[in-house]
Amino acid sequence: MRGIQAERNLVRQLWKKGFAVMRAPSSGSSTKMDRPDIIAGNKIKGLQFAIEVKTTLKECLYIKEKSIKQLVEFSQRFGCQSILAIKFKGRRRNWIFIKPDQLSFTPSLNYKITFRNALRFGIDFKTLIKEGKQTKIYH
Amino acid sequence: MRGIQAERNLVRQLWKKGFAVMRAPSSGSSTKMDRPDIIAGNKIKGLQFAIEVKTTLKECLYIKEKSIKQLVEFSQRFGCQSILAIKFKGRRRNWIFIKPDQLSFTPSLNYKITFRNALRFGIDFKTLIKEGKQTKIYH
Repeated sequence: MRGIQAERNLVRQLWKKGFAVMRAPSSGSSTKMDRPDIIAGNKIKGLQFAIEVKTTLKECLYIKEKSIKQLVEFSQRFGCQSILAIKFKGRRRNWIFIKPDQLSFTPSLNYKITFRNALRFGIDFKTLIKEGKQTKIYH
Repeated sequence: MRGIQAERNLVRQLWKKGFAVMRAPSSGSSTKMDRPDIIAGNKIKGLQFAIEVKTTLKECLYIKEKSIKQLVEFSQRFGCQSILAIKFKGRRRNWIFIKPDQLSFTPSLNYKITFRNALRFGIDFKTLIKEGKQTKIYH
């Protein structure tokens, strides 16, 4: 689940903080290539992200192996950080940002992360863009 | 004029040369932001481009001031180079790459470049991606 509305919101947040942001064409596009949902860069902050956006109503988010592979390959080619922007709807209003290596690999060859672990390992928007001191959401 | 087919072709060329490439959603999109047609990066080569794609059947290409402003602002925020990829259809098969400061400003507050000046000031694909020695198309 991509959550177009939530994604647009994230784009606006990044733009307001001085990032240049590009959203990929919708997933259904015939020209879908190996690329993330969003790419964002901020020269002044020295930050560049390839972002995969996921929203879920459940307590555990499953992500296809292919999505993660594409995200990481894109970032390695481009020369930027891979980040997952996750929204656990109904559980937390704000985005949680997770690095791909914080996901667990499942026996069905997919990746997953629970809401609890996202809170434990994830960072919030301010930390992502290097504003404020908070490094973890959960204390 | 964007020339979707030509643009896809350029994306493929860049991808083959190790770039990560993202195309913007079509111009008609309601979420059109200040962004270029293509963003491409190659970590190994140390190159990152925001690219505005233009094709024309005429001998002189006119570009709206707004397009150039958006391209340059995006690049400055992101921290990458601004490049115009121009195809003069029927005159030259290959792309000519031009920096925004090589365009002329017209009395009608637009930018333009003639085919002749594009050949004189532009660079070809190999030079853009730092392969081969050629620095100008025209000798």
